[in-house]
Amino acid sequence: MRAWRDPAWGAARPGQWQGRHRLCVGRSWPRPRAMAGLRQAAKTLGCAFPAGFQDVHVMIFVGFGFLMTFLQRYGYSAVGFNFLLAAFGIQWALLMQGWFHSFDGRYILLGVENLINADFCVGSVCVAFGAVLGKVSPVQLLIMTLFQVTLFSVNEFILLSLLEVKDAGGSMTIHTFGAYFGLTVTWILYRPNLYQSKDRQSSVYHSDLFAMIGTLFLWMYWPSFNSAVSNHGDAQHRAAINTYCSLAACVLTAVALSSILHKKGKLDMVHIQNATLAGGVAVGTAAEMMLMPYGSLIVGFICGIISTLGFVYLTPFLESRLRIQDTCGIHNLHGIPGIIGGIVGAVTAASANTELYGQEGLAFAFGSSTPSWNASTQGKFQAAGLFVSLAMALVGGIIVGVILKLPFWGQAADENCFEDAIYWEMPKDQKSTVFRSEDPALKASEP
Amino acid sequence: MRAWRDPAWGAARPGQWQGRHRLCVGRSWPRPRAMAGLRQAAKTLGCAFPAGFQDVHVMIFVGFGFLMTFLQRYGYSAVGFNFLLAAFGIQWALLMQGWFHSFDGRYILLGVENLINADFCVGSVCVAFGAVLGKVSPVQLLIMTLFQVTLFSVNEFILLSLLEVKDAGGSMTIHTFGAYFGLTVTWILYRPNLYQSKDRQSSVYHSDLFAMIGTLFLWMYWPSFNSAVSNHGDAQHRAAINTYCSLAACVLTAVALSSILHKKGKLDMVHIQNATLAGGVAVGTAAEMMLMPYGSLIVGFICGIISTLGFVYLTPFLESRLRIQDTCGIHNLHGIPGIIGGIVGAVTAASANTELYGQEGLAFAFGSSTPSWNASTQGKFQAAGLFVSLAMALVGGIIVGVILKLPFWGQAADENCFEDAIYWEMPKDQKSTVFRSEDPALKASEP
Amino acid sequence: MRAWRDPAWGAARPGQWQGRHRLCVGRSWPRPRAMAGLRQAAKTLGCAFPAGFQDVHVMIFVGFGFLMTFLQRYGYSAVGFNFLLAAFGIQWALLMQGWFHSFDGRYILLGVENLINADFCVGSVCVAFGAVLGKVSPVQLLIMTLFQVTLFSVNEFILLSLLEVKDAGGSMTIHTFGAYFGLTVTWILYRPNLYQSKDRQSSVYHSDLFAMIGTLFLWMYWPSFNSAVSNHGDAQHRAAINTYCSLAACVLTAVALSSILHKKGKLDMVHIQNATLAGGVAVGTAAEMMLMPYGSLIVGFICGIISTLGFVYLTPFLESRLRIQDTCGIHNLHGIPGIIGGIVGAVTAASANTELYGQEGLAFAFGSSTPSWNASTQGKFQAAGLFVSLAMALVGGIIVGVILKLPFWGQAADENCFEDAIYWEMPKDQKSTVFRSEDPALKASEP
Repeated sequence: MRAWRDPAWGAARPGQWQGRHRLCVGRSWPRPRAMAGLRQAAKTLGCAFPAGFQDVHVMIFVGFGFLMTFLQRYGYSAVGFNFLLAAFGIQWALLMQGWFHSFDGRYILLGVENLINADFCVGSVCVAFGAVLGKVSPVQLLIMTLFQVTLFSVNEFILLSLLEVKDAGGSMTIHTFGAYFGLTVTWILYRPNLYQSKDRQSSVYHSDLFAMIGTLFLWMYWPSFNSAVSNHGDAQHRAAINTYCSLAACVLTAVALSSILHKKGKLDMVHIQNATLAGGVAVGTAAEMMLMPYGSLIVGFICGIISTLGFVYLTPFLESRLRIQDTCGIHNLHGIPGIIGGIVGAVTAASANTELYGQEGLAFAFGSSTPSWNASTQGKFQAAGLFVSLAMALVGGIIVGVILKLPFWGQAADENCFEDAIYWEMPKDQKSTVFRSEDPALKASEP
Repeated sequence: MRAWRDPAWGAARPGQWQGRHRLCVGRSWPRPRAMAGLRQAAKTLGCAFPAGFQDVHVMIFVGFGFLMTFLQRYGYSAVGFNFLLAAFGIQWALLMQGWFHSFDGRYILLGVENLINADFCVGSVCVAFGAVLGKVSPVQLLIMTLFQVTLFSVNEFILLSLLEVKDAGGSMTIHTFGAYFGLTVTWILYRPNLYQSKDRQSSVYHSDLFAMIGTLFLWMYWPSFNSAVSNHGDAQHRAAINTYCSLAACVLTAVALSSILHKKGKLDMVHIQNATLAGGVAVGTAAEMMLMPYGSLIVGFICGIISTLGFVYLTPFLESRLRIQDTCGIHNLHGIPGIIGGIVGAVTAASANTELYGQEGLAFAFGSSTPSWNASTQGKFQAAGLFVSLAMALVGGIIVGVILKLPFWGQAADENCFEDAIYWEMPKDQKSTVFRSEDPALKASEP
Repeated sequence: MRAWRDPAWGAARPGQWQGRHRLCVGRSWPRPRAMAGLRQAAKTLGCAFPAGFQDVHVMIFVGFGFLMTFLQRYGYSAVGFNFLLAAFGIQWALLMQGWFHSFDGRYILLGVENLINADFCVGSVCVAFGAVLGKVSPVQLLIMTLFQVTLFSVNEFILLSLLEVKDAGGSMTIHTFGAYFGLTVTWILYRPNLYQSKDRQSSVYHSDLFAMIGTLFLWMYWPSFNSAVSNHGDAQHRAAINTYCSLAACVLTAVALSSILHKKGKLDMVHIQNATLAGGVAVGTAAEMMLMPYGSLIVGFICGIISTLGFVYLTPFLESRLRIQDTCGIHNLHGIPGIIGGIVGAVTAASANTELYGQEGLAFAFGSSTPSWNASTQGKFQAAGLFVSLAMALVGGIIVGVILKLPFWGQAADENCFEDAIYWEMPKDQKSTVFRSEDPALKASEP
């Protein structure tokens, strides 16, 4: 997301520069001779791309796609529309981020890190998709993606390039921005008669198992997500380990609270599918810093509680009082944990010092070698970044929401929400799903 | 697939040579002293194997396996027989490719790249399996695998070693060969009364969601597939980035055309599951060359259109007029895109020059340092490779088809096709799938 | 599991030491100057963590989780409780293994290898979970996890540190220990009236497909599992290749025997889901040694047979005669193959010599440079390790079983076993699972 501007990526990584492609045709780019040794190393070592790239890719397409298949009659749309908007979004993000960050005057240079950043950008669209799931048409989704990717790129440019905020796992740029953008859009698109589709706005047995595929791939690969664009070495390891610890702690409190809040002590699949992931969101900013494993465990512990409480108490409140219909409960999974992540990041950055990081480590982590840098200022800028993200999300969400409210985008009627049959050719006859007991007449043709 | 004979793999890669095993027992192989430094590097770096290996493995077993679970009553067979034939095929491929390529007179030497190549070889069998899905017995599948792996190895040897064709992602060797081999076999095995099983030759709601698991893992890991055996460094990065771009563009046109071609504008799961992947097939040859991202986007854009058109118009035509019953529509996903891939590869190779690749890059990509090499000749040999693959597929497919037509392989009767119960012990009583509403009598035993 | 104490990991690997975190806060740890060069290399190369880490993670959470979803009414619990116990177990394992192995007097140092080892430790709990699946409450599972992780750590310390046994893939420490621990627990928890839940102790069509997701991810990533903590370089490659070969051979014999043992020659999903994995268990100890690919093929071949025979004949015998109710048949998948793996490892170690490994290789693989080392002694210690693991499992299992037999852990009554509704809030109305044919009244609102 930003690491590619870092010296450690910009030139020092073999395979990095070489992988860069011009997006537009033209004459060949110069090949610095100094790269020869590193290129030899890359050839020798055979790391096609950073291990994290494919993991992030899986999270976007399988993780988010299947996480949203929990609705009984909206599985095709959940996984199919997520596929569509992500494939569209990454292309647009490559262009947008290319113009902002890797445009050399004539060409956009592409490397594997740009692909990761495009996936990240699309991640924020997937988050917003969760809020409007089941209530918008594919055309509306594509329009939303178009605008959101643009706004994301602007917001990211402000945070990372102007404010010089650190946000490797995107607590602010991806989760907070994506969640409040999506919530604002769904607030504008409020459907007063949505209760007409209420019977389809729940899961069935198998749809919840499909959703668990999404949950688990998101959960498992989140350490790769938060560390994918960190500075390599120390910071990247810290990010992976801290995220792993936070997620593990989050599962325990989410499960415990799910049982505690149920009148018969039963668990709720909604909490297991969603609240267990809040720990990954909440360390998105601080994971690459010296949050320490015990700090991560505490953050995950708290977020599991807050997120589960949100699903039980806050989501119904938002819907009934604030007219915010949040289908997947992204406010509890990405909204609040994202804000917590921004605050934790600001506090962790503000308390950075050479005793913790070492002289060299501090320069590497925050670029503290610039004379103007001090930890407290970094912390303030981190906090400012959080507010900028929120403001961009709210303003952008209102504009996009108003555009999407126009009546000619093919949106479904209130009684047809959460229904695949509106947009998909459905299997004709479902009687055959009921299995016929073994028919003795069925037999292999013998010679 | 072939890179292991490449100098960049043969000796220079640490972890490569060391991983080699003799398949047969005997005295220890010599250990060149010059490897010591590189071995130390490998120990130090801890890359167990190229990141792409496990990705390709996932594509073969989960990708192809689940892609074919779309049939309502053939999920066990789709994923189970795919598992069986792939496990058998990789062992046979290790032997076949070992005899052709890594036989040192006494032993077959095995390295991780041989495992990747075995997976690739089996990939072409999985493609062919898609054509005959639901109509052949496991015994027939094993026989087909036995012959197809053998033919694949011969064809690959002709293309890569004799014609010195470049085909890192296997547009020709894997997809074109596999598709036309499978289509020829299913043409020979034509069942005039297959309409008797027509009611089972469609999907149900959940089977389409299972198939999407396969689609997404194929789609996500295709950049690894096309780059897994490229020359490391430049070429491997190009391959991954170009494939990523082509696949993203392909999704958009496949979805758009699926909607456009439907009379009510609805989407068809068959197109989303299959046509979205055509972009990966079509850059299989050219991805590692200087196709450029914009070139990849164009190829993917076009293939999404052609593949979707194929599903709508060509597959019914093939079945009714040419008596080719192509269950999964592999002609649209692997056949035509494979040929396009071969042509794109030939054109891209023919237009290679030092301005685009640099002197060193051209030598690295095509071995242009041999005096006889020139780009136009390379292009012609690429085209020749495409025709050889087609010819091998047709001739081989006829022979294997005739063998499989013998009546004692346990094939199902026409009215029992696409039916798991022929080959599998089925769950007895399916009434329990219908969920009983929560029974108040069910309760945890309290102390 | 142990490799982090190995010189090859301890200091030589970049990214290793740097990733270490103190689990407890305190003053900064010293940074050896000699690391500078290697740290630079790690920054340059961008390998966030060993490729095997995420693969092992996927096996624990998706592999084991979905493997156990085969029961028709226990999918939520299978995947949800596995998620819960694994998330709890890895935190406890980080602490336990930290105290045993990476405690520096004030802090537990954490690196990515510790995360892998925690996953491994939890793997043995997942194995034991398979034996008690459907019959214990989540509270019982957490208690079992607490004790089993502790015992695992003690057993591992005895084997790896005191007996200096080699067991990279955990045939003894993970599989044998986990299986016999779980079997002992389920023996103590014997439910004479379990037949009352017999109608739910089977699969339905879709639950078997979900289970195949688990099977395939376990099968595909097993080479990573067995090689994740091997010494890098030679040993790691050997481990991956040998495991790959053993697994491939195992699939063929498991499928063949499944068909042979069925009276009509049909295949049984239980065997395909489980017995195909026995080959990975059985080379867990020897994979990193000079087992040779042909040796692996033989081991896999035999284990496919034994495991399938076990499912057909041994599991019913254990239940009816020995009162061991083994829900998932872990005795056939982890118990017997684990013992075979221990024996194969002992024999392979006892036959190690410099002709096979080279002087340097032998020192690297077994630490043979210590004067007291000889192959035959190593073999004897390997065998001793197997008996220690069995003894620990039996004694520990009895103690934990007795604790779990106490009547106040919320366990289900005999007639409510294998039932999600006891512990989970279930979807209310399942009539909607039956698909309504396309309703013409459903249409998108047009402008």
